[in-house]
Amino acid sequence: MGATGPVHEALAALPLVDHHCHGIVTAEPDRAGFESLLTEGEPWPGISPFDTPLGLAVRRHCAPLLDLPRHAPADEYLARRAELGAREVDRRFLTAAGTEVFCVDTGYTPHPITTPGELARTAGATAYEVVRLESVAEAVAAAGVEPEAYPAAFRTAAEEAVRRPGVVAVKSVAAYRTGFDLDPARPPEALVVAAARQWLADGGRLADPVLVRHLLWTAVDLGLPLQLHTGFGDNDIRLHRVDPTHLTDWLHLTRGTIPVLLLHCWPYQRQAAYLAAVFEQVYLDVGLTLHHVGPARSRAILAEALEITPFRKLLYSSDAYGLAELYRLGALAFRRGLGELLQDLVDADELGLPDALRIAAWAAGDNARRLYGLPDPVPRSDRD
Amino acid sequence: MGATGPVHEALAALPLVDHHCHGIVTAEPDRAGFESLLTEGEPWPGISPFDTPLGLAVRRHCAPLLDLPRHAPADEYLARRAELGAREVDRRFLTAAGTEVFCVDTGYTPHPITTPGELARTAGATAYEVVRLESVAEAVAAAGVEPEAYPAAFRTAAEEAVRRPGVVAVKSVAAYRTGFDLDPARPPEALVVAAARQWLADGGRLADPVLVRHLLWTAVDLGLPLQLHTGFGDNDIRLHRVDPTHLTDWLHLTRGTIPVLLLHCWPYQRQAAYLAAVFEQVYLDVGLTLHHVGPARSRAILAEALEITPFRKLLYSSDAYGLAELYRLGALAFRRGLGELLQDLVDADELGLPDALRIAAWAAGDNARRLYGLPDPVPRSDRD
Amino acid sequence: MGATGPVHEALAALPLVDHHCHGIVTAEPDRAGFESLLTEGEPWPGISPFDTPLGLAVRRHCAPLLDLPRHAPADEYLARRAELGAREVDRRFLTAAGTEVFCVDTGYTPHPITTPGELARTAGATAYEVVRLESVAEAVAAAGVEPEAYPAAFRTAAEEAVRRPGVVAVKSVAAYRTGFDLDPARPPEALVVAAARQWLADGGRLADPVLVRHLLWTAVDLGLPLQLHTGFGDNDIRLHRVDPTHLTDWLHLTRGTIPVLLLHCWPYQRQAAYLAAVFEQVYLDVGLTLHHVGPARSRAILAEALEITPFRKLLYSSDAYGLAELYRLGALAFRRGLGELLQDLVDADELGLPDALRIAAWAAGDNARRLYGLPDPVPRSDRD
Repeated sequence: MGATGPVHEALAALPLVDHHCHGIVTAEPDRAGFESLLTEGEPWPGISPFDTPLGLAVRRHCAPLLDLPRHAPADEYLARRAELGAREVDRRFLTAAGTEVFCVDTGYTPHPITTPGELARTAGATAYEVVRLESVAEAVAAAGVEPEAYPAAFRTAAEEAVRRPGVVAVKSVAAYRTGFDLDPARPPEALVVAAARQWLADGGRLADPVLVRHLLWTAVDLGLPLQLHTGFGDNDIRLHRVDPTHLTDWLHLTRGTIPVLLLHCWPYQRQAAYLAAVFEQVYLDVGLTLHHVGPARSRAILAEALEITPFRKLLYSSDAYGLAELYRLGALAFRRGLGELLQDLVDADELGLPDALRIAAWAAGDNARRLYGLPDPVPRSDRD
Repeated sequence: MGATGPVHEALAALPLVDHHCHGIVTAEPDRAGFESLLTEGEPWPGISPFDTPLGLAVRRHCAPLLDLPRHAPADEYLARRAELGAREVDRRFLTAAGTEVFCVDTGYTPHPITTPGELARTAGATAYEVVRLESVAEAVAAAGVEPEAYPAAFRTAAEEAVRRPGVVAVKSVAAYRTGFDLDPARPPEALVVAAARQWLADGGRLADPVLVRHLLWTAVDLGLPLQLHTGFGDNDIRLHRVDPTHLTDWLHLTRGTIPVLLLHCWPYQRQAAYLAAVFEQVYLDVGLTLHHVGPARSRAILAEALEITPFRKLLYSSDAYGLAELYRLGALAFRRGLGELLQDLVDADELGLPDALRIAAWAAGDNARRLYGLPDPVPRSDRD
Repeated sequence: MGATGPVHEALAALPLVDHHCHGIVTAEPDRAGFESLLTEGEPWPGISPFDTPLGLAVRRHCAPLLDLPRHAPADEYLARRAELGAREVDRRFLTAAGTEVFCVDTGYTPHPITTPGELARTAGATAYEVVRLESVAEAVAAAGVEPEAYPAAFRTAAEEAVRRPGVVAVKSVAAYRTGFDLDPARPPEALVVAAARQWLADGGRLADPVLVRHLLWTAVDLGLPLQLHTGFGDNDIRLHRVDPTHLTDWLHLTRGTIPVLLLHCWPYQRQAAYLAAVFEQVYLDVGLTLHHVGPARSRAILAEALEITPFRKLLYSSDAYGLAELYRLGALAFRRGLGELLQDLVDADELGLPDALRIAAWAAGDNARRLYGLPDPVPRSDRD
């Protein structure tokens, strides 16, 4: 995309490990459906979600893959998208993403979406699964459980969920339920039972602070890497409560146990970087953010995220959900942003080229492979 | 100012809607008076407010309009300003601002200042009024009212104030009085009366959390757009309490009622952008910030503010108070900063020129016109 | 380093006042020791602290001073460092730093380190001392004191400590002990005694909120400038509690007493800038941050720190501890970052050259000299 130099070339050729994403909606989206999948917000009467940085990025960087000119109007874009059909559109964008591995959070399903296997087949990639613990807990509640039995039942269900083939991590959306300003200590069983009694009587989603805490500690017991939504999302978030530094006391208590992956992070990417720099077990990505700000702004976000982050602590994710465009845009924004950052440092002789290539390969996939125990990469040129 | 290209040219020609500003001091300021109007701070013994980014911007961008060389020393600047006289100085800067509409907060008057009409006449522009609700409440208290009658009396006074011709919005400085970490619910009448009893007995400005909450809910009842000071200001602010994301619960409760305009926002422009992206009713500007950081830094602030903000949600304001220079600098910094941002995207083919021109026109005035129901713009070339 | 122009040349020639740093470890560090001094974090198994922005900066900017090529590998770097020996290495880096005055915090001594005098002699510079008040209080406790006698004993010990020749300031690490969300009022004696009773019984470091508050108010009584750690550090920090704006109420109560110097600040440099802009007594630096982010990123941090900071309020510090490299990198990153910022403004005619040179000289040393009452600078060319 105009960016040249050996780091850009290397990043363009590197297959990515997208360590956190979701599925694609299986129904062909109409205009309203497409637009609602473009935004974390609620509908804005009289305002199109195309009139956002993400909307511009779709028209600029996705339109050409549908054989349209750059900056094609939204109407033309949607018409051509419908003409090609979802299967072809998905194939084009997923192939263009150049992602070799998807780690798919299977616990968020407001729409019918592809399974990890379907996503992987469309992309010519491999999929692993990330188990969302709130979904496990809510399934336990929905199946019917006595409050006294809840702690053991949740634990058993979570253990069973992570024993399924291909599961490499668990995830929590505590950010959406309580935020992180929680008592960090493992809650005593009696307290968990009392909170479960209330929740099971009241119904609704799991949002009790004691039960959220219990969930996080159950993640520690499971022993797999834990992905945590941090920073922005939809308006269910209280942003000031999801600054990940609120996790500091909990990170102290859980040192030496499981890796903790801070997802998204914006606008707290510097706070996340601090935690990654001072806690052995903390890693971060700026997924979701990158496609929302778009390829032209991704370098600025990555520059902040990398101010003090150890280079083995940065991962790539798209956090794409619903639209095939987002897998492509996330990958492009990551390659472009990191490429610009590293290439400029090389050009200014602030960074040696071999070091730059190593850092690029780490972030594009090696850090995730190391952390999740994934097999070695297949060179991109050999995959097609 | 050296910035070239069609976006810059378009922005230079666009008449601005300054949707939040104040009046100009009517007395000719002496050096101490001028310097105190340059800063949000208290006097710094031995330090001139000219030795700030804003002071540099005055010497660089305002001196030439007084027929002085760029970067003229402060002494020469003040001498020439006095020589020309306030009327001529005001005329020059207000004309140069290229502002077509001013929405003037008339509730902040520590000095004798121009009325909205006087400001508009000097600028060859139109003025509308923004009613500051704290001033209305304090006038009700000053006129004498029983605690039991306070809720109705404040409501009536506010309704009368907004019925005056030319009133387009209300404003609250809750940020200065309590910050935003308030109970979001509408307070029951009895609680308001009890709080009013205490306040009316104690005197002083309205700063009781219950009364501030009541004021915000009264704004909802009035039905006009509500401007909220957020982010930095003078040292009366507790900055960490005016992060606008503390308003999230209140924004949930007031969905579907009134537009909410987050003013200034720095250093929380990303937090404000998040709210604008996920709440239908939220808009933002980076007024005040732009003249304080100066034209050379305004692009960086706007770039952060626009990372995820829908383009119909960004407004322009100067938040100028007291000095005619600030109307000019705010306008220049906005045109320059937005121009650099959009022009560079166009030059890199990340954004189509027609889209860039549309976004520029929206932010410069169309978004404000739409929101406040203002008449269509007059082309700048037709105004002189 | 490639940066050219008169501002860069001026900054390269200006002797620095490093108003906050520590000593160098006196033992020759082995690889593990060297690496642990490169990071604020705990050891990362399988991850070298060289794989960080700071590690890259060492290899890029320090290797040539050890006669190695730029970007020399870590192994070669450490081997050459050992070959030259610590005395020679220290001499090279300290001389290259171009620092004329060091103000040394003598209260942090987890390793045997150089005295201020030794540091100064190696650098051909002058050293002053900064007294860390927590260390004074803990020495009082360690020597044995009755709770009732603690307030007076601490006060007397602090007064004696600051009467030592060469002491120019005091420092507090309240950030590490409690954070800044403290009751701002001076605590009554009875409360201090009660808190002291508990602390003296329990042992450990001073971390009681009442005693920390008492310490800050004792600093006010001492009358010397107070340096405050703010923002990031090791994982003992709860980052969200060390946003310096939590000090606002305390700054109101202590107006007109002592200068307060906000150290490091990242990622709260904008919040610190706000306080420096609105409180007469507040100053800031971005020490520690600059060597961690490295010379290539220092301009971005300084640009944020200077968005609204009065130019007489910015100071230079390295906050170097342990490794001679850090004095050199801090100085280089400061000169480079400030030089790029100011030179670009001059080149764009946004700033006059004489103003740029004045601002550079202020930040490099004049502001610190004025604040601490230090003698006038010696031109760098006359010092060798």
